[in-house]
Amino acid sequence: MIGVGVIGYGYWGPNLVRNFAETPGARVVAVSDLRQERLRLAHSRYPGIKVTTVHEELIMDSQVDAVVIATPVSTHYELALTALRAGKHVLLEKPLTASSDQAKHLIEEALRRNLVLMVDHTFVYTGAVRKIRELITQGELGDIYYYDSVRINLGLFQHDVNVIWDLAVHDLAIMDYVLPLQPKAVSATGMSHICGSPENIAYMTLFFDGQVIGHIHVNWLAPVKLRSTLIGGSRKMILYDDLEPSEKIKVYDRGVMVDMNGESIYQMLIGYRTGDMWAPRLDHTEALRTEAGHFVECIEGARRPLTDGEAGLRVVRILESATESMKAQGRLVRI
Amino acid sequence: MIGVGVIGYGYWGPNLVRNFAETPGARVVAVSDLRQERLRLAHSRYPGIKVTTVHEELIMDSQVDAVVIATPVSTHYELALTALRAGKHVLLEKPLTASSDQAKHLIEEALRRNLVLMVDHTFVYTGAVRKIRELITQGELGDIYYYDSVRINLGLFQHDVNVIWDLAVHDLAIMDYVLPLQPKAVSATGMSHICGSPENIAYMTLFFDGQVIGHIHVNWLAPVKLRSTLIGGSRKMILYDDLEPSEKIKVYDRGVMVDMNGESIYQMLIGYRTGDMWAPRLDHTEALRTEAGHFVECIEGARRPLTDGEAGLRVVRILESATESMKAQGRLVRI
Amino acid sequence: MIGVGVIGYGYWGPNLVRNFAETPGARVVAVSDLRQERLRLAHSRYPGIKVTTVHEELIMDSQVDAVVIATPVSTHYELALTALRAGKHVLLEKPLTASSDQAKHLIEEALRRNLVLMVDHTFVYTGAVRKIRELITQGELGDIYYYDSVRINLGLFQHDVNVIWDLAVHDLAIMDYVLPLQPKAVSATGMSHICGSPENIAYMTLFFDGQVIGHIHVNWLAPVKLRSTLIGGSRKMILYDDLEPSEKIKVYDRGVMVDMNGESIYQMLIGYRTGDMWAPRLDHTEALRTEAGHFVECIEGARRPLTDGEAGLRVVRILESATESMKAQGRLVRI
Amino acid sequence: MIGVGVIGYGYWGPNLVRNFAETPGARVVAVSDLRQERLRLAHSRYPGIKVTTVHEELIMDSQVDAVVIATPVSTHYELALTALRAGKHVLLEKPLTASSDQAKHLIEEALRRNLVLMVDHTFVYTGAVRKIRELITQGELGDIYYYDSVRINLGLFQHDVNVIWDLAVHDLAIMDYVLPLQPKAVSATGMSHICGSPENIAYMTLFFDGQVIGHIHVNWLAPVKLRSTLIGGSRKMILYDDLEPSEKIKVYDRGVMVDMNGESIYQMLIGYRTGDMWAPRLDHTEALRTEAGHFVECIEGARRPLTDGEAGLRVVRILESATESMKAQGRLVRI
Repeated sequence: MIGVGVIGYGYWGPNLVRNFAETPGARVVAVSDLRQERLRLAHSRYPGIKVTTVHEELIMDSQVDAVVIATPVSTHYELALTALRAGKHVLLEKPLTASSDQAKHLIEEALRRNLVLMVDHTFVYTGAVRKIRELITQGELGDIYYYDSVRINLGLFQHDVNVIWDLAVHDLAIMDYVLPLQPKAVSATGMSHICGSPENIAYMTLFFDGQVIGHIHVNWLAPVKLRSTLIGGSRKMILYDDLEPSEKIKVYDRGVMVDMNGESIYQMLIGYRTGDMWAPRLDHTEALRTEAGHFVECIEGARRPLTDGEAGLRVVRILESATESMKAQGRLVRI
Repeated sequence: MIGVGVIGYGYWGPNLVRNFAETPGARVVAVSDLRQERLRLAHSRYPGIKVTTVHEELIMDSQVDAVVIATPVSTHYELALTALRAGKHVLLEKPLTASSDQAKHLIEEALRRNLVLMVDHTFVYTGAVRKIRELITQGELGDIYYYDSVRINLGLFQHDVNVIWDLAVHDLAIMDYVLPLQPKAVSATGMSHICGSPENIAYMTLFFDGQVIGHIHVNWLAPVKLRSTLIGGSRKMILYDDLEPSEKIKVYDRGVMVDMNGESIYQMLIGYRTGDMWAPRLDHTEALRTEAGHFVECIEGARRPLTDGEAGLRVVRILESATESMKAQGRLVRI
Repeated sequence: MIGVGVIGYGYWGPNLVRNFAETPGARVVAVSDLRQERLRLAHSRYPGIKVTTVHEELIMDSQVDAVVIATPVSTHYELALTALRAGKHVLLEKPLTASSDQAKHLIEEALRRNLVLMVDHTFVYTGAVRKIRELITQGELGDIYYYDSVRINLGLFQHDVNVIWDLAVHDLAIMDYVLPLQPKAVSATGMSHICGSPENIAYMTLFFDGQVIGHIHVNWLAPVKLRSTLIGGSRKMILYDDLEPSEKIKVYDRGVMVDMNGESIYQMLIGYRTGDMWAPRLDHTEALRTEAGHFVECIEGARRPLTDGEAGLRVVRILESATESMKAQGRLVRI
Repeated sequence: MIGVGVIGYGYWGPNLVRNFAETPGARVVAVSDLRQERLRLAHSRYPGIKVTTVHEELIMDSQVDAVVIATPVSTHYELALTALRAGKHVLLEKPLTASSDQAKHLIEEALRRNLVLMVDHTFVYTGAVRKIRELITQGELGDIYYYDSVRINLGLFQHDVNVIWDLAVHDLAIMDYVLPLQPKAVSATGMSHICGSPENIAYMTLFFDGQVIGHIHVNWLAPVKLRSTLIGGSRKMILYDDLEPSEKIKVYDRGVMVDMNGESIYQMLIGYRTGDMWAPRLDHTEALRTEAGHFVECIEGARRPLTDGEAGLRVVRILESATESMKAQGRLVRI
């Protein structure tokens, strides 16, 4: 039975506690938060759990085998390092760390101590994203042409990170999981509309080897909520709308057919192909449940998690490069 | 009665002929096209119209007062110049010309001869876009924050121009009409997925003075058709979906409220404001009908059209700069 | 070459003329309408066609082999009877006649003279409805459970017929084509909200043999336009939304599974089955084009049309019964 | 502080417990259920609450002031009667009882003992339904013409009640709250598709005084989930879509204008009016929270609840009449 301690009982912490509480092989031992009223709430819901405002107490607790960290990203590194050095496995909310250097140190620390270091790239554990990876891996889409995502809504301005670190991190985590290749360079643009706040709207283009292009649009100041991704391939294309209650993924048998028989490219004929659309049935298990179980299994089996420190590092590297590019109004930055 | 000659009876030409045929004050005198079968079609529909494969004949026809040009953009300049020099008023399909130099010459030529030079920025003549301009001009949105447009579908690969010149031109024409200011620089990215074809997917960020940002996503290789624009302001926001049959424009009374009472920006409180949504009734007159009437009125009254040569030039300048930036993978290009 | 004469150049007549004008094997010889301005419009579009306000002239014209009737339903019987007696084939706009007695007389008259009598059940000739019939005929849905249709919008109040005769006729024509069995009884309700007008909202339940039930909701006074049909079967279910631009038909692999192992029905277990959704590619040929071609082929080959007089009669019988039931506030009427 | 006991911890009971646990002025004292595993779940979540399989214990508990009943409808009457006779206030899940006679007895019993009897018509406590009532009461819609609701999905076949008692009860509860008048007669139809099960699809038309008509379509065997209501009035119309995340209510300024200047009804002109659409901001408080607070206030202030026994009785009467009509295939039944 893995003893779990959760640091941070704000927006996401309660979901983590609830899911670990119901995960076989795990039990939630302690919760820490700086705010007494959050601890009171945790206690009222789970009277058997220890609560403390001092996170060191939680980390050092001998009943705690694994530390789950759901605090602002600026605190991730110190908390995780302390936990790893205390011999505890660590699951960190996304993004893994505030810099790639920090990420590398955590990875080394975990490796040296044979501890599991995992990042909470939640979407990787949804039925929808797993189905997308399956379709791409099986070659259903043919050659990948583009990956285009829009993730916008009104809400939750953050003081310490820009909208890329808050929202685009989800898209980068999904791309890291479903695409068979990594971006090589990024061009990003963005703007802050609230004086003194970080950028609240941003666009980033990702360049891959070959003809693959990625693009992410994130916005905290949109009147409507959109969670929509298009993945274009030479054989088929996917529309993934996370807000659709039942048909989150639609696979379109559409594309172009090129007839190169002409003598010059001006005689090249491009025809359109329109076939059926298909929405596969998806597994609707709560992503965090699957993820909590996976973390426990990795600890028990000394296995490397699907979203390990390296996955977290790859995403943080892109976030860093994108922020650098955004400061320079779209200048291409190698990753 | 203004005699109209239409050059080009392909995809768009028939719409132009049909609308000028039903515009008071105008009559269609002649149609020219290089393809006999297109002329046969024109003749079967309008037996009283002269048809010719020789556009000079049409231009020189003494009954033709105004020449309407709906041919590939690479031919616009020569055809329009010939018509202006023959003393004819000119309406050119979008984009005005293949370069800003060409556009400037046409503007000078028209000015010197006191002729009307107009570009067919069709969307400017829709009820939806006119309502957007009205709302922005009346200050309904407050300060403009961003303009974000998506215009994608499967179809109509072109050999001679990239997707920006084909699709983004619509968005630039709309922005030129509804926004009170002009973009100063552009960062664009894109990709070609069909060997030998121009870019079929592209993204462009437009920088304006102040905190205004624009973005356009165009794609010829999408499985679904989208025509969706978001305009964010400090007071209200607009969602303009051109594919909605009845509620094309939705005005959201949504935004953020900033409370600066704290001592540092970390204490700045950002609250969310969510009010009513409102979809104004729109004029459903066909845009091309309104536009044809406007062209005739400008000729009769020697007035400057809403979408004059200057408007066409401003759009072509951005297209040029965006293409340059796209070749350099997002490098900022001043406009 | 079949010479076609079209009586009635109002809302639907122009579509009929346009389609017959482009149908191989047919040519439009004459158009009649009581209104001079409609004839002027027809003439301006088709200078070679004879126009007349006297429909007898059109019917008796020796160049006219087939008469197409697009006039108010109250005039159908007299016009069609005159045409049949003059030896002309007849295509009547839906509904076939104002009563089943009239329909029977026309069927007899056509049979006696070996003439084609066809009713314009337009939807039967759409790619969507043909695909539905194909799926049902192939047993894709399993046993049919229900057919439920909603056809509502704001508009086009009629003085002489209620909303059932105007809108539900479409659904009845589709049901007649796609379902393998006929309704035996009907219970209908409705209401008029404009004093002196016929019912503008109506609901009708159709009872078939076995456990099949049909329902149609029609409304001239709705704020939104809906054209939505659900067909439930024991194996699969169809959602047919005629307003969807590309995915008009969605086939859901969903249903219930019954486990009768328990000793009583209270122990009967009903489980839910949720599988993939699939939207087949559809033929997008204009329905009226297909239909015009079919009419010409039936005349040339002396064949019985898909939507013959009998199909028209079956639909009129249900309309009569439904109207009778509606007057009696839902009383069951045998058909 | 009102002590609350909840009988039934199945699907709905946990929501009731959760909401009463967080309602000021109330505390949950005890939970009863026949199933031990449900009680274990309740205990694990709320260790301080008494649990029992014997509901009499709960009812007789001196700390219990009010009994909340979330059990199958066939058990409502006995449980509620026992509770009222023990001097406890009662909140019953919908529908109030299995017959109108039972409802009348409970109303009398509560009246005699000065106890609060309330029925859980949950939708009445949503921001959307409250806004609809406000709009109708203020005369915003003008004269009411029709109320049309569709409530369908795949799921939850019940053994003891037909789909009307399960789903249409929601629509009847909403109509009872928002409409200023009561139905006088009903014509209902329906069908069972699973041998031995009650009707799983049903349609009911409600007749009111004047020209008002209501209709409800409910279905347990639909491939898609719909929760959509249209309310037509002489001035405006409402579309209420409960599945819309943000714009649940849309108010359309649409209708017809009648010009009676002609000499006969055949000259009566009916014009169409199309104005703006408007989606008012709604209160998003969880309905059950509002409802729990209202129950507590009614007990404390000895006030009559919004959804009192009489409201429950009115709805049960219509359910009875509709079931009777459905057995007779649509025969009109006076209510």
